[in-house]
Order: sequence, then structure tokens, then C-alpha cells
Amino acid sequence: MTARYRAMQVSSPGKLELVERPLPQPGRGEVLIRVEACGICGADAADIESYDPTIQPPRVPGHEIVGRIAALGADVPPIWSLGQRVGVGRLGGHCGYCEQCRDGAFNLCRNQLFVGASCDGGYAEAMLARATGLVSIPDDLAPHEAAPILCAGLATFNALKKCGAEPGDIVAIFGIGGLGHMALQYARNMGYQVVALGRGQDIVQDVIALGAHQYVDIQRGDAADALKGLGGAAAIIATAASPAVLSTLIGGLAPQGTLVVLGAGKDPLTLSTGFLVGGERTVTGSITGTPKENERTLRFSLLTHVRPWIETLPLERATEAYQRMRSGDVKFRMVLTMPPPKEIPID
Amino acid sequence: MTARYRAMQVSSPGKLELVERPLPQPGRGEVLIRVEACGICGADAADIESYDPTIQPPRVPGHEIVGRIAALGADVPPIWSLGQRVGVGRLGGHCGYCEQCRDGAFNLCRNQLFVGASCDGGYAEAMLARATGLVSIPDDLAPHEAAPILCAGLATFNALKKCGAEPGDIVAIFGIGGLGHMALQYARNMGYQVVALGRGQDIVQDVIALGAHQYVDIQRGDAADALKGLGGAAAIIATAASPAVLSTLIGGLAPQGTLVVLGAGKDPLTLSTGFLVGGERTVTGSITGTPKENERTLRFSLLTHVRPWIETLPLERATEAYQRMRSGDVKFRMVLTMPPPKEIPID
Amino acid sequence: MTARYRAMQVSSPGKLELVERPLPQPGRGEVLIRVEACGICGADAADIESYDPTIQPPRVPGHEIVGRIAALGADVPPIWSLGQRVGVGRLGGHCGYCEQCRDGAFNLCRNQLFVGASCDGGYAEAMLARATGLVSIPDDLAPHEAAPILCAGLATFNALKKCGAEPGDIVAIFGIGGLGHMALQYARNMGYQVVALGRGQDIVQDVIALGAHQYVDIQRGDAADALKGLGGAAAIIATAASPAVLSTLIGGLAPQGTLVVLGAGKDPLTLSTGFLVGGERTVTGSITGTPKENERTLRFSLLTHVRPWIETLPLERATEAYQRMRSGDVKFRMVLTMPPPKEIPID
Amino acid sequence: MTARYRAMQVSSPGKLELVERPLPQPGRGEVLIRVEACGICGADAADIESYDPTIQPPRVPGHEIVGRIAALGADVPPIWSLGQRVGVGRLGGHCGYCEQCRDGAFNLCRNQLFVGASCDGGYAEAMLARATGLVSIPDDLAPHEAAPILCAGLATFNALKKCGAEPGDIVAIFGIGGLGHMALQYARNMGYQVVALGRGQDIVQDVIALGAHQYVDIQRGDAADALKGLGGAAAIIATAASPAVLSTLIGGLAPQGTLVVLGAGKDPLTLSTGFLVGGERTVTGSITGTPKENERTLRFSLLTHVRPWIETLPLERATEAYQRMRSGDVKFRMVLTMPPPKEIPID
Repeated sequence: MTARYRAMQVSSPGKLELVERPLPQPGRGEVLIRVEACGICGADAADIESYDPTIQPPRVPGHEIVGRIAALGADVPPIWSLGQRVGVGRLGGHCGYCEQCRDGAFNLCRNQLFVGASCDGGYAEAMLARATGLVSIPDDLAPHEAAPILCAGLATFNALKKCGAEPGDIVAIFGIGGLGHMALQYARNMGYQVVALGRGQDIVQDVIALGAHQYVDIQRGDAADALKGLGGAAAIIATAASPAVLSTLIGGLAPQGTLVVLGAGKDPLTLSTGFLVGGERTVTGSITGTPKENERTLRFSLLTHVRPWIETLPLERATEAYQRMRSGDVKFRMVLTMPPPKEIPID
Repeated sequence: MTARYRAMQVSSPGKLELVERPLPQPGRGEVLIRVEACGICGADAADIESYDPTIQPPRVPGHEIVGRIAALGADVPPIWSLGQRVGVGRLGGHCGYCEQCRDGAFNLCRNQLFVGASCDGGYAEAMLARATGLVSIPDDLAPHEAAPILCAGLATFNALKKCGAEPGDIVAIFGIGGLGHMALQYARNMGYQVVALGRGQDIVQDVIALGAHQYVDIQRGDAADALKGLGGAAAIIATAASPAVLSTLIGGLAPQGTLVVLGAGKDPLTLSTGFLVGGERTVTGSITGTPKENERTLRFSLLTHVRPWIETLPLERATEAYQRMRSGDVKFRMVLTMPPPKEIPID
Repeated sequence: MTARYRAMQVSSPGKLELVERPLPQPGRGEVLIRVEACGICGADAADIESYDPTIQPPRVPGHEIVGRIAALGADVPPIWSLGQRVGVGRLGGHCGYCEQCRDGAFNLCRNQLFVGASCDGGYAEAMLARATGLVSIPDDLAPHEAAPILCAGLATFNALKKCGAEPGDIVAIFGIGGLGHMALQYARNMGYQVVALGRGQDIVQDVIALGAHQYVDIQRGDAADALKGLGGAAAIIATAASPAVLSTLIGGLAPQGTLVVLGAGKDPLTLSTGFLVGGERTVTGSITGTPKENERTLRFSLLTHVRPWIETLPLERATEAYQRMRSGDVKFRMVLTMPPPKEIPID
Repeated sequence: MTARYRAMQVSSPGKLELVERPLPQPGRGEVLIRVEACGICGADAADIESYDPTIQPPRVPGHEIVGRIAALGADVPPIWSLGQRVGVGRLGGHCGYCEQCRDGAFNLCRNQLFVGASCDGGYAEAMLARATGLVSIPDDLAPHEAAPILCAGLATFNALKKCGAEPGDIVAIFGIGGLGHMALQYARNMGYQVVALGRGQDIVQDVIALGAHQYVDIQRGDAADALKGLGGAAAIIATAASPAVLSTLIGGLAPQGTLVVLGAGKDPLTLSTGFLVGGERTVTGSITGTPKENERTLRFSLLTHVRPWIETLPLERATEAYQRMRSGDVKFRMVLTMPPPKEIPID
């Protein structure tokens, strides 16, 4: 009799339903993961709301996944073994042979999977994953702690590394949610003067606890002016896709400063060319990162005692968890947890 | 009797008139230059057309100046001497003590002069210049050859150095005028695959002679598609301030490619955030450069036999020269020349 | 009846012998190459002279290989196809899963093959190669022209890219042989002021023809002083493993200049710490490059019309070719050529 | 009657004597500083022991100076004012016009002063200083706390910034003294995994308190092996000039790792070329930094609560203080303090 597992799949746009499926066998270069935790990322909304049943199979969302390897397909490299704790982020494994991969830019692979979108993700007790997308998870991190690091952590850690600021410089974090609350912690632990840019006064205490030296409420007066008043930001990390706000915020960049954009929105970003040229400013995009970079992010999190602030709910309450994320009612990451199903033995 | 010199000053918006003025004495840290040649840059239009007689003295435009030192003010560093051939570009000398200067970013000095705008420029037989703005001109270059290098050359040379492309990569030059025709030559001599992006078929032969490997007529079909067809540009150097065109052109950037903007226009640049993030692309501004960088540009021009393509007219025909520049009727740089006036002895 | 091919194998230290071998079958991830040309690199000496029959099978040397794919093993990526012209350099293919590979630093892979040393090379009519080590060869290059680019070209092209010099800066090339003569050409086409550092006056005309702006005979007076007299080198590319010479040469580096070491010698490099600290100078090592970087090198060679200067001899005269390389009697690369053997059909 | 001040000058090699001198007047571009504190740096030994009375006037050592501006010479930029708290480090002010200065590399200025060596330093109640060498000192730092930051702090902060390591990487600090104890704190606050490399077990508790994650006693077993056991150091910052030790330590660098050398010793550094090439490793020198970089260092120290560990002694006990530094009997910086002399009014 075939073993089965439970999964939350998108049955129609915006709607999740709990189903039981037969456990799949990993193909060549793949592993089967018994999932232990899966974070709920803002990007899941695209996968869930924009789901099109006429062109897609019912898809399982979720791309901040931690679990254990339950089965190995053929030709999986020897660095992966049965029972090992592993994770998977948004980028589900590179091909290894496209132009970008042969340049080592795996996160730009032209044949990669986008977990939860072009393949099934982690709102489930089990999932298949390409070995090239696997991340080794240290035992010192609990599954539900590690999960949000795999996308929210990685995306902001990498953005900070490429933002060009020097230790002691002002780095502003725009958007205080799943990504932003990780960015604040990382920025503080990299030695920056950290300015949080958010909406409202409710989160002041939280952003200070997360490491911000200053908080600027963008609903009260001009945030660019506030940054200029502090001396100008060497970098702004934009974790929220609000082009209209960003177009004004970049006025707060110091000369030779950089705006790093993490999220793609529908509306375009509008930039003053005089502002770009006159101060030799830069706007650049950053797209999550590679499994090895994810391992660096986890390592840095352990070293500096950075952890996501999370709330957990069991898999079967995914709809509730998702809706709370959508309404902004979570500080700061919702994580689904799955008790180990007896149908999926590891060893 | 005070010596006098002739100058073309802006008497009212858009209007140049030839005047005689008494020769000024250089103040502390200044030199008097006997001008030999001055290029006519597209940026002169701002100084000439936007001239406001209610807030400015009659100003002499021109910021691509070559001449000889005719008098030294107090405290001029010993690297400058009477009779030495020197040049001045758009940036007329840094203060040395502002935040940017103490960081070595002289081109972003907060107290610098903008030659032809905030101080008199080189449409004249003589001018005063700050020693910190002086450029040493090699004897191997004729004054009228060297002049356009000091702004059109420097701006494009520096932009190419910071564009992030590797030798062999595709670098596209948008705008084939005073700046663009220098950019084509420099890009070719730095080992790039050079693509010229221009309007019309008239200039095909010229851009090939200037070093382009390919020419794309942006009036015929989609230029971004053309770049993508070639494999994508590692960098686009935008020498023309046409934000609307640029907003479409950046679609021709390869992943991790960079658009370098050189000119500030009134209209904003509109960028797709998905495009920035998905391919980790970058948009950055570059503002001319320092005197030392100008000397590097001159050195590189000599080393690689790059010269501006110029037409010359005498100072008194500055109005005609300016109007030909404005109407695009010059290949590719108009340069004013001044016979050495006997009133300004050098030695 | 099994097809056979001819190969020059090392039968005892320093001795090559022509043998016939049965044609092997490519394993998983491998291809069989019908070799058309193979350069003779200075590094072959280590493989041939240090050969130890007690621990190694008779090994075929040669790692500048161009040929066509004659057979495909299992799981070879779809970018490779039967009959395609391909090359292999010193690094015979990365594993894809070690720490370095997962960082994209394939040339530092911990499980890679060193062609001609840890696996058979190209002094032969056929050879097996890992697909991860394959380089696509443009049809515009003849096999014997392309072969030396795969090691001598790649090593120097990459070293120049990482040397930190700017266009127009002085870059000195030490050692005018197989690598050095490529370095001169590449450096010239990247816009550097190129200084050749060699021994004796015989090669003056050649180095000038190869692109050097100046020649310094290190047997006549002090080469470091000569470089200082020119203004100091922004970079020195050391293509010859002569630590004793290098220890003196670095005195010719300009402040913040970089010495790039390409070859490992037995004797250590001796550096003055005052020299390193006082001028913030750098010494760094560079080890060849990846297949994608090799394709960039080939592309750059085509774009800038750089070709190795070669002499060719047929495979069966490999001993003579090797000895001429060893005695320095070749300008500047010896290449073995192989007529297509009828036993190895391509289609 | 001319005002006088007390100073500790070198009267013969190795010997300090307390003298009274007439207060000098600041020349053009200079200020007179009323000294409040001066650190005793290991580099003072060269100035004191190697003093040559036949070629030098009696020189006052000391280059970690904090005080207040007591008089302004002509042409001092408006960023400096009477009574302002300022500091001076080893580099006593750049010329502004040499080749390095015009490139913005002020710390490599060819005409700069070396404080305590080529001009009088801060073992005194007053000193003259070039305005280009002045550092603005925040009021939040006490003079004796700020003084050691100006050389020991700056040198290590800058070295860490250029070491190439990423947050989370292993950075090893060799030498746990005046410089090393600052390096440990800075490295920790930049987010590195910090390994202290020192001699003996006495300092274990101190290095942990200073921020080290691990301590390696280089007298017990092989330090390079210990680093390799941890995964290899992305960077080693060498604060002690012990070339013999460094030559072995670099074996502990990870691939693509960098050794940053801060101090120049008499003996050369001996490097295996195989080690450099095989792992693409780098050795580079770093020489202190500019006044603006010093202000960044102070700012970072405030931001991250880094302070030097000091002992203070009054000026007249400079000989005792110096000897304790020389014998290693100080944790970790000795600072001379001077009560404000009534002869030097500020306002």
C-alpha cells in the first residue's frame, strides 16, 4: 500500500484546501523531504491568489521549508544523506549548465524551479526537491526558527552584503515585516547605523528591540528629509514593493548611496535623473540567493544570535495563518509546523 | 594701462555677445589662463539658454578649456608653473575640506565651481581658474584636440570604467554626439564589443569608423530587442538625456548588467522593478570626474590614438558655432580657437 | 572489433612513447572527444618529468585540447551534442557539489581533474572528458589556433581581469613565452600601457609586434628601477615561476599596485613587508579559470584578433615538439595536430 | 613674555627627557593644539630608539593625540575653530597636490608628515599640526579614550574593511596588543567569526571579553592547522610584525583568503607560490588611514560601544609608561594625560 501525506493545495484562486496525496518517489537528482516547518512569505500571495487552474495542476505553496531527507533519488551528490536536516528556499535548484550557472550565478539560473509556483512547495508533510536547491540546516536551529531564514533571511542578508555601505554608515530598512525584521537584525550585527522606515507608531518598540538605532514613521512628514537630517543613508534596503514610496525615499540617499530593491511590484519605479547623476547614486535589484549563501545566512544568524520573530500554527490551519499574514496581523513571520507523520519513516 | 581680453558673454537668455574686459588678477589659489581652445558642449545650452540676468552677472560659458598659465596667484602648489599648458573641465576646482573632499570624492565637492555656470568659462581669450581644477595637458596633443577630452572624454571614460563590464562583453553607447563619439572610441580600445545606439542611417559609416562593431537604429524597431538578440548588453552608457528612450532601452541589459546615466533630464526615468530584481540589474549615475582622472583620460587617448572629431571656428564666431551644435549639425564637436592675444604675455 | 586510437603516453619519467589503445566509452557525465589539436604547455613538464610509474598508470599528457564530440555518455547536459567542436583546458571538470563549487568558484573545485596529470590528456587522437570541463569552441577559430588559448590564453586573460589596473595604467608582463606572448596581446587590447619584461635582446621585435609599448631586458640593469622610471606598474603579471626575480621586480609596482602570480615554483617568494605596507601593495595568485571564462577568452580573442603564435607538428613527433618547448626554441607555442582518424566517426 | 609648554623629547637614542619650550605660532594651514592625551604606540619605539641626534632636532614622539585647538594659522579651512576638540594620528597631514593626493589616496601622500618622526608629536602639552591632518573628535568620547583609536583603532578598522571577508566569515587577528585588542572588538562588531591568535594562556579571558569567539595559542601546536580545523580564515589581520610567524600562519587561510599586513618588520615575508596560486590567496599591506577615515572609526566605536582598554599616566611619567609598553606590561594601551596648562588659554 502506498504511503500518503497531507498537503495544503491551491484549489482555486485564493483558496487553500487540505488534501491527501500518495507519497512521490524522488527522480534523478532529487530527494524526498519530510517537512517539519514552512514559513509563510509575502510572496506566497502571488502563488495563491494568481493561481490559474486552467494551466496549472493544483499547486502546494510555501518556500521556506525545513525538514529531513526521507528518500534519495539517483545521482544525488554524496553531501546529502538520509535523515539529514535540510531546507529549501524560493529558488528550487539550478540546472548547472545554462549560461548563468556556468558563471556561478545560480540564483539567475534560466532553468530553475520557483518553489510553490513552478513546483510544489512546503505547506505539506512532504515534498520533492532538487538536490541543487538543498540547504544544510545546522542542528542548533529549530526547524521553525530556521524556516524563515531561508527566504526572508537570505534575501535581506544578501542585499545588505551588496549594498556598498561601510561599517558605521547609515543603512535604512524600508518595510518592517517578514523581511524587514530580519534586515534590521542583520544590519545591526554587521555594524551599521540602522534606521527603520515604517508606518505608524505601534512598532517603535519592536524595531528598537530588533536593533534599529532610529525609527522614521513615513506617515509623519518626509522620510527622505529625515534621512538627510541624519546625514544621508549610504544604503536603503527596500523590503516592501512600494515603488511610489521608493521614488521619494531615494532622496534620502547620501552621495554615492545605493537603493537595493528586493520585491517586484506592478507599478514602475520613477527616478529623477538629476538625483542619480548629481550624487552618483545607484539603484539595483537583488534576487534572494543560492543554497550556499543560505548556509552563510544561517551561520551568521547563529553567530550573532539573530532569530526570526515567529508565530506557529499547525499545517491544517494554513488558511488562517495565511490570512493573518495577508492582513499584516503577525509579528513578524507565521510558520506552519507539521508533526512527523508515521507514514514517512526517515531511517 | 590695464591689459584687456575679448570674451563671448551671455547678455540675455540664448544670446552671446563679444565684449572686451580688463584682465583680472588671480587670487589666492588661482591662476590666470590664456585660453587657446574651448569646446562647445551640449551642457553649455543650459548655461546659455537658462541665463537669468536678474541674479547673475553676464557669464562667459564654456568648460572644455585648454590654454597656458599666464599668471599665478598666491599659494598655488608647485606642480603648476608659468607658461605650462593646462586645461579646465566642467568641475572648476574642489574646496579640499568638505565631507566629500576629505573622502577623496572631489567630483562631488560641495563647494566646487561649475565652469561657465557659477564662474566664467572659456569662450574667451583668458579666464581665471582654481588650481584644484587644473588639468595638466600633454604637449603631444594640440589644444583644439585636447579640449573636448576634458568633458566629453572624461565623462565617458569614467562611465566606462565604472560600468562593470568585462573585456569582451557587449557595451552599448546610446547617443552619438559629442560624448557618444568619444565613448565609442574608448569602449573599443578597452576591449568591449561595442554597439552604437543612434537615430537614422546617416551615421552608420561614422560609428563604424569610430569603433563600433554594430549599429542599432533606434528608430527602426525595438532597440532593446536588438541588444537581447546580440546576447544582452553588460552595460549601456547613456550619453543622451532621453529618459523615455532609456526606460525602454534597459530591457536590452543582460542579467547583472548596468545602465550608466550621464546626463540629467527634466523627465524622470521609469524602471520596471521586476526587471531590476529578476535580473539583478543596476542603474547608476556618473558625474564627470576629477582633474587627475582627466589626466588619465588624456593619457589613455594618447596611448590608444583616440581623438575627438572636431570642427573649429574662431572665438568671434561663437554664436554660429553654438547654433550648429544645437541643431546637431556637427561631427562631432565644435571647438572655438583663439589666436594668442599680444596683451597676455606668458613668460 | 573495437576501434583503436593512437596516443603519446609517458612510459617512464621524461619519456613519451606512441601507443595504440582501445577507444574508451564515455561514462555518466562524460564525452569522448576526437582530438584535432593539443598545445604543449610549460606545465606539461611536471606531468612528463615527474611521472611515477609505481603509482600512476601510463598517463597521456596535454591540456590545451581542441576536438569534436564523438560520443556522449549518460546525463550529459543538452548544451553538448555529437559533432560539436569543444575544448578542454587544465581543469578537467568540477564536481558541482563541493564547498567551492557551491560558491561558483569552479576553478577551485576540490574534486576536479587535472588534465594530463590526474586523467589522460590530449597528446592523442581521442580522450574522455567530463562535460563540466568542456569549452565551446567558435567555428571561426581553427583547432590549432584555439588550443593554446585554453590554458595560456585563459590564465593570462583572467589574471589581467583581476589585476586591478585601469585602462591607461602600466601593466608589466614578466616572462615572454607561451603565456607571456598571449598576455602582451590581451593587455594591449584591454587598453593598458604594456611593458614586456624579458631576457635578452633577441625578442625585442617580437614583443613590440605582440603589442608591448616598451621592452625591459631584465639582464641589463634593474628592472624594478626601469618600471619606476616609467611611473611604476599598476600591475605585474608573472607568467614565469621565478620567485627570486619576482622578489626584486615588485619594487617596480606603483603604490596600490598588484603582482599577480600565475605559476607555482619550488622556491618561495620573499617580500619586504615595508614595501607591502608603505605603498599598500598586493601579491595575489591566480589559477587558470572555468570553462565559461575560457569561452569569454575565446570570444575576446576573436573580437580583438588575438591569436597565439604557433608552430605545429604531428602527434607522432610529440617528443621533438616537447623538447623544443623545453629548450625555449619555439615562438611561442608548439601545437600537436592530429589528422581525423577514420576509426573515430563523428556522426 | 612668551608662554611656554612642557614636552618629553628624545635627547639621545632611547632616552626621553622633560623640557620646557616656548609655545610656537601656527604657520599657514596649521593649528596649535593644547594636548589632553596621547597614546603610546608600538611604533613610537622606532622614533625613540632610532633617533639620530646628528640629523634630527630633539624630537617629541607620540602620534595618538587628542586636544583642543588653541590657535589657528592663516588659511585654515572653516571646518576648524578655536576650542574645538581635535586629534592627530600617525599621518600628520597631506599636501593635497601630489599624485596620490590628487587621486584621493591621502594616506599615501608623498609629502606628508609622520607625526613624532618627521615633526613633533604629542608627548607634550602642546603641538603644531597641519589642518589637513586634523580629526574631529566627538564630545561623547573622553580624550584618553579617543587617543588610541587614532592609530591603533584606525589601522585595524581600515584593515578589516579591506580584508575581503564577508559577515559570518572567520577573521583571525594575530597579535593581541594595542592594535590587536582593537581589531578583536571591531571584527566582532562587524559580524565576523573572530579568532584571536596570541602567545600564552594568560590572555584567554581578555580576548574572549574583547569579542573573540576562539583563541589559538600559537605556542601550542600549529596555528595554521588550528585555523584550517575551523574551516580556514577568510582573512588574517597581522597586527604584529613577525614575518617568520606570518609565513607559517598564512597556511590557515581559506581559498581566496587574504592576509593583511599592518606592520613593517626588518625580516622579509616568505611565501609559498604554490599556496598563493593553488588557492588564489592574497597578501596585502595597509597603512593607517586618512582623517576622514579616522572620523569613521571614531563614529563606529561610539556606535558599537568599542573602547580601548587603557592605563593612564601623567606626561612626566612618560619614560615609565614607555618602558611598560616596551616590556608588554600593559593591557592594552598606555595613554599619557596632561592637565590643561594655564599658559595655553583656549578662548
